[in-house]
Amino acid sequence: MIPRYSRPDMVAIWSPETKFRIWFEIEAHACDALAELGVIPKEAARTIWDKGGKAVFDVARIDEIEAVTKHDVIAFLTHLAEIVGPDARFVHQGMTSSDVLDTTFNIQLVRASDILLAGVERVLAALKTRAFEHKDTVRIGRSHGIHAEPTTMGLTLARFYAEMDRNCARLVAARAEIATGAISGAVGTFANIDPQVEEHVCAALGLVPEPVSTQVIPRDRHAMFFATLGVIASSIENVATEIRHMQRTEVLEAEEFFSPGQKGSSAMPHKRNPVLTENLTGLARLVRMSVVPAMENVALWHERDISHSSVERAIGPDTTVTLDFALNRLAGVIEKLVVYPQNMEKNLNKFRGLVHSQRVLLALTQAGVSREDSYRLVQRNAMKVWEEGKDFLEELLADREVRAALSEEQIREKFDLGYHTKHVDTIFRRVFGEA
Amino acid sequence: MIPRYSRPDMVAIWSPETKFRIWFEIEAHACDALAELGVIPKEAARTIWDKGGKAVFDVARIDEIEAVTKHDVIAFLTHLAEIVGPDARFVHQGMTSSDVLDTTFNIQLVRASDILLAGVERVLAALKTRAFEHKDTVRIGRSHGIHAEPTTMGLTLARFYAEMDRNCARLVAARAEIATGAISGAVGTFANIDPQVEEHVCAALGLVPEPVSTQVIPRDRHAMFFATLGVIASSIENVATEIRHMQRTEVLEAEEFFSPGQKGSSAMPHKRNPVLTENLTGLARLVRMSVVPAMENVALWHERDISHSSVERAIGPDTTVTLDFALNRLAGVIEKLVVYPQNMEKNLNKFRGLVHSQRVLLALTQAGVSREDSYRLVQRNAMKVWEEGKDFLEELLADREVRAALSEEQIREKFDLGYHTKHVDTIFRRVFGEA
Amino acid sequence: MIPRYSRPDMVAIWSPETKFRIWFEIEAHACDALAELGVIPKEAARTIWDKGGKAVFDVARIDEIEAVTKHDVIAFLTHLAEIVGPDARFVHQGMTSSDVLDTTFNIQLVRASDILLAGVERVLAALKTRAFEHKDTVRIGRSHGIHAEPTTMGLTLARFYAEMDRNCARLVAARAEIATGAISGAVGTFANIDPQVEEHVCAALGLVPEPVSTQVIPRDRHAMFFATLGVIASSIENVATEIRHMQRTEVLEAEEFFSPGQKGSSAMPHKRNPVLTENLTGLARLVRMSVVPAMENVALWHERDISHSSVERAIGPDTTVTLDFALNRLAGVIEKLVVYPQNMEKNLNKFRGLVHSQRVLLALTQAGVSREDSYRLVQRNAMKVWEEGKDFLEELLADREVRAALSEEQIREKFDLGYHTKHVDTIFRRVFGEA
Amino acid sequence: MIPRYSRPDMVAIWSPETKFRIWFEIEAHACDALAELGVIPKEAARTIWDKGGKAVFDVARIDEIEAVTKHDVIAFLTHLAEIVGPDARFVHQGMTSSDVLDTTFNIQLVRASDILLAGVERVLAALKTRAFEHKDTVRIGRSHGIHAEPTTMGLTLARFYAEMDRNCARLVAARAEIATGAISGAVGTFANIDPQVEEHVCAALGLVPEPVSTQVIPRDRHAMFFATLGVIASSIENVATEIRHMQRTEVLEAEEFFSPGQKGSSAMPHKRNPVLTENLTGLARLVRMSVVPAMENVALWHERDISHSSVERAIGPDTTVTLDFALNRLAGVIEKLVVYPQNMEKNLNKFRGLVHSQRVLLALTQAGVSREDSYRLVQRNAMKVWEEGKDFLEELLADREVRAALSEEQIREKFDLGYHTKHVDTIFRRVFGEA
Repeated sequence: MIPRYSRPDMVAIWSPETKFRIWFEIEAHACDALAELGVIPKEAARTIWDKGGKAVFDVARIDEIEAVTKHDVIAFLTHLAEIVGPDARFVHQGMTSSDVLDTTFNIQLVRASDILLAGVERVLAALKTRAFEHKDTVRIGRSHGIHAEPTTMGLTLARFYAEMDRNCARLVAARAEIATGAISGAVGTFANIDPQVEEHVCAALGLVPEPVSTQVIPRDRHAMFFATLGVIASSIENVATEIRHMQRTEVLEAEEFFSPGQKGSSAMPHKRNPVLTENLTGLARLVRMSVVPAMENVALWHERDISHSSVERAIGPDTTVTLDFALNRLAGVIEKLVVYPQNMEKNLNKFRGLVHSQRVLLALTQAGVSREDSYRLVQRNAMKVWEEGKDFLEELLADREVRAALSEEQIREKFDLGYHTKHVDTIFRRVFGEA
Repeated sequence: MIPRYSRPDMVAIWSPETKFRIWFEIEAHACDALAELGVIPKEAARTIWDKGGKAVFDVARIDEIEAVTKHDVIAFLTHLAEIVGPDARFVHQGMTSSDVLDTTFNIQLVRASDILLAGVERVLAALKTRAFEHKDTVRIGRSHGIHAEPTTMGLTLARFYAEMDRNCARLVAARAEIATGAISGAVGTFANIDPQVEEHVCAALGLVPEPVSTQVIPRDRHAMFFATLGVIASSIENVATEIRHMQRTEVLEAEEFFSPGQKGSSAMPHKRNPVLTENLTGLARLVRMSVVPAMENVALWHERDISHSSVERAIGPDTTVTLDFALNRLAGVIEKLVVYPQNMEKNLNKFRGLVHSQRVLLALTQAGVSREDSYRLVQRNAMKVWEEGKDFLEELLADREVRAALSEEQIREKFDLGYHTKHVDTIFRRVFGEA
Repeated sequence: MIPRYSRPDMVAIWSPETKFRIWFEIEAHACDALAELGVIPKEAARTIWDKGGKAVFDVARIDEIEAVTKHDVIAFLTHLAEIVGPDARFVHQGMTSSDVLDTTFNIQLVRASDILLAGVERVLAALKTRAFEHKDTVRIGRSHGIHAEPTTMGLTLARFYAEMDRNCARLVAARAEIATGAISGAVGTFANIDPQVEEHVCAALGLVPEPVSTQVIPRDRHAMFFATLGVIASSIENVATEIRHMQRTEVLEAEEFFSPGQKGSSAMPHKRNPVLTENLTGLARLVRMSVVPAMENVALWHERDISHSSVERAIGPDTTVTLDFALNRLAGVIEKLVVYPQNMEKNLNKFRGLVHSQRVLLALTQAGVSREDSYRLVQRNAMKVWEEGKDFLEELLADREVRAALSEEQIREKFDLGYHTKHVDTIFRRVFGEA
Repeated sequence: MIPRYSRPDMVAIWSPETKFRIWFEIEAHACDALAELGVIPKEAARTIWDKGGKAVFDVARIDEIEAVTKHDVIAFLTHLAEIVGPDARFVHQGMTSSDVLDTTFNIQLVRASDILLAGVERVLAALKTRAFEHKDTVRIGRSHGIHAEPTTMGLTLARFYAEMDRNCARLVAARAEIATGAISGAVGTFANIDPQVEEHVCAALGLVPEPVSTQVIPRDRHAMFFATLGVIASSIENVATEIRHMQRTEVLEAEEFFSPGQKGSSAMPHKRNPVLTENLTGLARLVRMSVVPAMENVALWHERDISHSSVERAIGPDTTVTLDFALNRLAGVIEKLVVYPQNMEKNLNKFRGLVHSQRVLLALTQAGVSREDSYRLVQRNAMKVWEEGKDFLEELLADREVRAALSEEQIREKFDLGYHTKHVDTIFRRVFGEA
């Protein structure tokens, strides 16, 4: 977790204060259930909520106790007893540390998911606004980095919207994966605690009881969760790569927003670097690097070992904080992206009409010219454009053989950009439900 | 794709024969739609189906043509023309190679998913059968590889069932991710082909039209697909690791089935190696290694580049073939797993009752003995067991201080295994809907 | 291993024929050592070489036997006995299958390394030739894809040379990592075979005896080996990315060689796609994906388990074959790369001299103009270039305030490209030892 | 970087204070060289060293300035000017931020390497001591987790020593990879600064000048560096896995040291968990996860982009800190590992002599009994041991057919453990150069 790539709300989820607050809530809800079952006095459960509910847990004090007991949950419970008094002995009855720790981790991931979902929504909103703004802004489509056929900037943004929308659905599914809790004891048999406690605690905290746990909640859930974050990160890289390409000096179809006062802009006005999207490319790698260890965490020995724990202490906060930052940075980039339609037009016309050569070829064929002759006719005019810098349309109009097959109107029609954009509305309707 | 780790049905999906057959179907369905739209003659579409539908495409001949044209789709179309005759000129009108290639790849992945789902189902069936068979077969639960509290073999199998059942749902979702097709042209604008063709072809082939494509279908879908396979592989490793542990010489609570005639079994009867589950551990790594490149494939330059293509040529077949083999190998291992309940009992009793020390401790406390004294009492008897090999129950019964707090019956009750298995039915109902 | 991304020499290393030949040589050399030690008759060792040395092992026959014995080494030995006769009983005495298998795998990797080294050498030779050819071909250097300061095409090639030269050294080190053999028995104690056998076999086959093995050669060696291949692949991606950028339509400073007859080139002369370097980008991912599983292979249970085996059956051939193909494809691309110095010059001058603004700014300061004023002077002329398309040099020469500080000669001198290339020879000497 | 998995010396390398100190030294050394070249006054260089050398840079103040300038190096230089006075204008002349940043990063990695090397040395010392201590402590060797042939605990430790010794050599090579510096300007051409400055700064700081850089030092170096750390982490996992297996309840041949006062040990004396080695297994995954992004960092666009920067901000500190912690935790575990030779003996004899069945089989064959008969004789006695719990040696001695072929002495000799340990000294000499 690098401060410069962090936002406070997500960081707060992973603070000791938040952690201890969740621990308390799990324990207190469990006490309610135990009281209801008659295992502990209802009075005690109430006292625990009353005193613990308004307490501010002293992280330094807990650390101090842990330094002696070498056990974090015991340290917390000891501190809680300092706050709650004698009734604290009813806390944690029949429970295992992992019941608290694993359920807490999942609550943190659920909360993180909610923040990430808000980030995805912000990206979606930005993409949609800009897509409609540039629905008809024509630019050249490129395959392999080479000019192919015309498309529009709106379509580019629409495809990113559709991709991010899929990520939204994936993230909702990933959130459900880890929205479970377990209060099932040392090997998951509920030997010392009734399953109803688990049900109560989970319901109170917005979780689903884990159908069958061991000492721990199964880690295939977390593998799927982090894998999903890895896919989202890859989509961020996808958008970032497009913007980096557009901002290249020679292309310059768009630029990251550059505030007027930003250093060095006017003596070297061309030197505006796409540093935000380059940064997003790196952040995507950071998010993605948690995927493999999360998968390696699935195979625990027997009912549990602790090998996954250190991994999750790192990737839990680091990955969610980084992805949250990246999503919001991306949203900002899109919201303020400076688009240059004139440059798009200039690039589109870079080869003075050659981009339409395929349509002309087809038209000749359809006009009855043999495939070989059509090709020869297009080629000889194309080469004049390519080698001598002539204009393709003018050359064709001046080519008698071509004109023998096609009228001026027919030829000019092949240079109509509307041909390429005629289905943009259809695609927008597919993506946004409107056009 | 390693022959010894391959099953023929999955291999067949990736054969040139299958590929060309799918290419043909895409082209022929597109002709139907083009005919319906009046772009090509209905007669031609019919001829194409008639002649191509019953043809066996000659892979060697297509390779021969490709050696000249350096283009696989053109080579196929040329061969198709040899079969169909002059009407072949109506094939592929307005389409781009990627329309065929990407849609085909997704069809192959959909078919692969169906085979993988059958594999998951087989694993689930095996796990369920064996789980019920051993629902009440008590064994020691272990955390950190160390004896903790009793559980049952059925619970172990039930948790693998629940995990694999989640994988089933994930695989269904992953299949939907890649069940799309695109016939949208060189940059995805449908400039040269009506979107209705895409709709018709997709409907005919069980796909959903890709809402917005470029030259290619977006690769976030495939990243999610392969990530899901990676999670499933990790679950396979999880089950395999448990079995490898159970088969360890010192544990020997279960063994992979070993056919009577299998080499070397009787002169060294202990030397039965868990080679199948070790192999599954390795295969899991092979499946998982496709996840990162599939994610690296998401960010293509502009409308497309071809960097993902070579990756998919490898991981498409390799990953699905390996996972298919692994799932079926795992199913076989579970179906025939030799379980040794006596060894489980022997291991459970390895420390002559010490496994119950926690319950005794709790009982003493509840009987009014102070926490410190309770601990001292349990400890002194535990150490006799640990250091002198005494029996824990007998020592406790003979300890006057203990007996002052607890009756013989109360003490014996703490050694009842039923205490640990009382919620097994509850858990089974959660997992299987029955118990 | 995908046929279209394979070269026959590397493929041959991984054929069953090669494997069985190596198995034979290990066994036969071991017989020599055993004969020398008096364990088996010298006569027998000689017979084994005589008959086996000239035999062609029948792969189908060995497969047939393996189908019965379920053991590959036993199947081979059985077939060998069919060839050698009764003396075959002296083969493999005191040895373990892994002695043969692991030593063979390392021999295959050593041979693969030699082919890879030849590939690296070919890339180096190409880079050197082209670097000297374009030592002084000036082009704009870019950071963040944005024009920065001038550099030369030779420097670009020189840095790739230096990087690939490091890879050469790394590959030599990686080769040494896996150039070991082990003939040490079931758990590596040499219980049934003298260490001298291992020494003899290794010496005969160009290997170093593994100082301490278990049943297997330790896999940290192979992790390091495959990690090194992953680094080399990343360097290939680095070069490929540069070329892909250079070939972009708007940049077009270089192109992959495009043979005159290659399809579609003349009707759309701009549509030459950098498909080879895009392909290299994907191949790099394929090579790299073996790194993680190779590292996961290091931790085996006790003296060995077999989890690494299936992984290596795949990544051994696949990774070396793919990297070999990639290196040679890269070499070909570099050897025939079409460089366009005019386009480089055109791109360099895209902003009519603005690239020199930093030097002018410095000159003004050094001439005594305050930093603020210098900046203002440069800026107002720069903006005329940026916004009105003026020429930077002319504007500066016409700016009285500028001319008050700097003479025409001084200003013109700041536009001298030689300023930027004056240390090219120094760098070339560092890289190539000559300039 | 997780505090609980961090050691202060390594953390200090990555502190802002250290970073700014290194920045200062690079700048000040560069001033020396510039003064020597006559570019700046010698007086100024002296003043910079005098004032800056004893200054404590105020991190908060620098952050404050950076909040305005949005540029870290400029913020530092501004603060430096506050300390040094007017001569500060001579600092950083002709240099680029990356000259400072990249050289600093490499210095940090070099220092980190030195600490890591000390950690590896500590592990090696511990392994060597314990290896000699248990050189002759016999235990059963296991393949596939199944008893195979006897080995010794010393051999186990010796093989870890040999592996870690290779890691030591690899780390030395990795340190050399990143021990370079670059002061070469915006695109690496030395346009504004003489190469002699780079040479002087590098020599002063223990670095080698990067032969050819762009704006940045090439990242193949860092890929190789982090890949090497990944291999070392995998070796740590290898050792940790062995210890985890040894500590399993049913095996219990060794235990992590457990301090007498450590919680919960005496009421459940069997419940000592190998939490340190489990933790090491997880830490290994964390170290390893940096390998792929470090490789993805190699391919930068043209002379540089900034995508690698965020990745390195994370993996630079996190990976070195985690590996440093892991190495020292591992060393502590080995130094204090509690070994149980009696349990080793007990496990070895678990099958009452069956472990020697192979040797008996061989002896019978050598005594002239046919292979089939030998096998039958061994098998019938083995099965009595396996199924009825008889003693293998006694059964053999009582078997008339066996005795017809072998004398009592001959049979007893096959049960001699010395047979298996006779080459231990040889192996130790290979590994340690002594025995």
